[in-house]
Amino acid sequence: MTIRLGVIGLGVVGAETLQTLKNHSNVIEERSGQKVEIIEVSARDKSRDRGFDVQKYLWRDDPIELATSQNIDVVVELVGGEDGVALEVAEAALKAGKHLVTANKAMIARHGARLAAIAESMNVTLAFEAAVAGGIPALKALKEGLAGNRINRVSGILNGTCNYIVTEMSETGRSFDDVLKEAQAKGYAEADPAFDIDGVDAAQKLSILAAIAFGGTPNFDSVDTSGVRYVTDLDIKFAKELGYQIRLIGVAERTKDGVMQRVSACMTPKAHPLARIDGVTNAVLIEGSPVGQSLLVGPGAGGGATASAVLGDIVDIASGRGARGFGEAASSLKELSVAPVSVRTGSFYIRVMVIDRPGVIAEMAAIFGKNGVSIESFLQHGRQPDEAVPVVMTTHDTNESTIRNVVEQLGALATVAETPILMRIESL
Amino acid sequence: MTIRLGVIGLGVVGAETLQTLKNHSNVIEERSGQKVEIIEVSARDKSRDRGFDVQKYLWRDDPIELATSQNIDVVVELVGGEDGVALEVAEAALKAGKHLVTANKAMIARHGARLAAIAESMNVTLAFEAAVAGGIPALKALKEGLAGNRINRVSGILNGTCNYIVTEMSETGRSFDDVLKEAQAKGYAEADPAFDIDGVDAAQKLSILAAIAFGGTPNFDSVDTSGVRYVTDLDIKFAKELGYQIRLIGVAERTKDGVMQRVSACMTPKAHPLARIDGVTNAVLIEGSPVGQSLLVGPGAGGGATASAVLGDIVDIASGRGARGFGEAASSLKELSVAPVSVRTGSFYIRVMVIDRPGVIAEMAAIFGKNGVSIESFLQHGRQPDEAVPVVMTTHDTNESTIRNVVEQLGALATVAETPILMRIESL
Repeated sequence: MTIRLGVIGLGVVGAETLQTLKNHSNVIEERSGQKVEIIEVSARDKSRDRGFDVQKYLWRDDPIELATSQNIDVVVELVGGEDGVALEVAEAALKAGKHLVTANKAMIARHGARLAAIAESMNVTLAFEAAVAGGIPALKALKEGLAGNRINRVSGILNGTCNYIVTEMSETGRSFDDVLKEAQAKGYAEADPAFDIDGVDAAQKLSILAAIAFGGTPNFDSVDTSGVRYVTDLDIKFAKELGYQIRLIGVAERTKDGVMQRVSACMTPKAHPLARIDGVTNAVLIEGSPVGQSLLVGPGAGGGATASAVLGDIVDIASGRGARGFGEAASSLKELSVAPVSVRTGSFYIRVMVIDRPGVIAEMAAIFGKNGVSIESFLQHGRQPDEAVPVVMTTHDTNESTIRNVVEQLGALATVAETPILMRIESL
Repeated sequence: MTIRLGVIGLGVVGAETLQTLKNHSNVIEERSGQKVEIIEVSARDKSRDRGFDVQKYLWRDDPIELATSQNIDVVVELVGGEDGVALEVAEAALKAGKHLVTANKAMIARHGARLAAIAESMNVTLAFEAAVAGGIPALKALKEGLAGNRINRVSGILNGTCNYIVTEMSETGRSFDDVLKEAQAKGYAEADPAFDIDGVDAAQKLSILAAIAFGGTPNFDSVDTSGVRYVTDLDIKFAKELGYQIRLIGVAERTKDGVMQRVSACMTPKAHPLARIDGVTNAVLIEGSPVGQSLLVGPGAGGGATASAVLGDIVDIASGRGARGFGEAASSLKELSVAPVSVRTGSFYIRVMVIDRPGVIAEMAAIFGKNGVSIESFLQHGRQPDEAVPVVMTTHDTNESTIRNVVEQLGALATVAETPILMRIESL
């Protein structure tokens, strides 16, 4: 038998997927027990040079015609975007009884539960391994390999752009703007980088991981999200001095109040498994019982990593192994109860630019004391009377809403020159 | 529907598996879409206190009766050992049309291909994720998640005992014997540690990984195997000085001559992903196209990690997702063509104890020169005329058989006091 594919979207990932299917057809056939063939393709511009001949496939100008075509068993959606063409294609394909493979994290984070329900009602597979850390079979690990575990926490480095930027800043001492420009030139960051550097991309992926880990529907809106835009070379320097690496970390964990999800630049102790992940590499750290910790590391984005995940999903479907998108019956997915990050307890890094005058430190210390926050370390280098100098404090465990009050009160002091910087310190 | 299990072998792993199935029954039912229940158990000694009540299950004194029981859908073999009871149980269960889940690496490395053929002929699943690095779903990643890739190389830290020993030696400067004794006291090493410290356990696991990665039958006999028994604190010290960590590494790779498999204590550059794996942790590094590198890290042994893998296999079977043990049809598994390690090219670390006399270095250098081996670095600390002192050399890339000749010739020198130490240097 032959599994017949239709591919919509022929950018870098689409081209790599087609190329790999061709080059590895024997491996893929052995592993899936079926021939896998691309029959139809669709993209915005037929004439664009993609390095291969689209004439070999049936071209569809209208992606919906492909998604519902009689010639196709599996639709591969590589258009991207939360709504629009991607969502129309996904719905049409599933409703027409086609399996759907997608790399679209934005769509899955927002509409995944609904799409999974349609897939289930039509008895077809919705597969999206490529949506999260493509080069790492993390969703499969959570849904299947570690299926016997009660997962307590999933965390990770989920955005290669951010990790490249903070790694490069740390290794070279250069400024954020400087490294961002370089990342854009190298193709690691988009012309409009907001989606990556403000943590949105990582939050979408985290919400998908959390849904699978905790048996719920993705709840992207409840991810407390910030990015790396305000990471300065000064904080990178202090991080080193304190034994930390700054990393954009996403964490989803069970708490007594519900599932808590957050994405932020964190001070990460050098011995922490995620502190050692450098450059564009992604990592997913799964913590559960009885397994303990399992860490998966690999390329997160780019043609090769994404094509690898798309092909893994296709082989699963061809093998008759197509699993449920979120690992459970769509009907059994609960709306996860949400714990706000404000109830979280942890330690923090705070940097304040203060006018170096007598009594300033006492003023700041009083604010900490008044709020019941205990300071773990205090750093100030040199003195420059009447100028703004950086003062860094780290705290013992305290509450997030308390520390936000402290920071607000520090910022209101006449001697504090800029908005203070607050970062979570990840515990080991 | 209910999936009915029979468990043979109720040691640490068996007990943890039973306990986890009980504690996580709701998670497991949601993920597998079925109730999973233990119906029958068997072990050598019924009366032994295992911390739970075996009376809840039907006890079988004869494991073969369990393996062929009408009440059972899945047999879980946790006895261990290459042959004997484990193999009898495996064959009987598969031939009786039961799915078989096993943690038995020795049996799979030796008899896996034959068992897979029986399973296939009976249309049941043979599953052994727990046989290799239990806490890491590495076999699943190779067979399924990365199924679209052509795998070029699989390597890893596959034995926690060895890794604990070399990590501890490196961190404390203590001797091998000393650390081994401690490992035995902590339960990380067996009373007879040969199986672990001579690399046999790692070689069994490597041969299973290689079979899956390259679509062949496991060929344990062709793994060039040595262990950590001859790692000295002196070599650990030199390793540090040269920027290496000593790690017991297993490597299986495609070469133009066939598949090459080796397990040995290696000098591993500090920036190498496997150099950072400490203590009893295991790691599997998968290199393929188009994915690049994917690294999986986690606990390799112990009740929790092994039970996690066993349960993952059970959920797969209960979900109707039971895959083929080696990822391909048993009939399509080839006997892999074997490349002997003697044809390998790489760089090496050599330590020689030489009597410190004039002309000794020239004699040694001449041997390297005559064999066409170029020295990359040379270390000798201090001088002790007429006493044996350590001299360390690292080489540029050379051939394995050549360097073995060099070492033999060095050892034959009158001024060389002990058999020289030879270790592979892993390249980044």
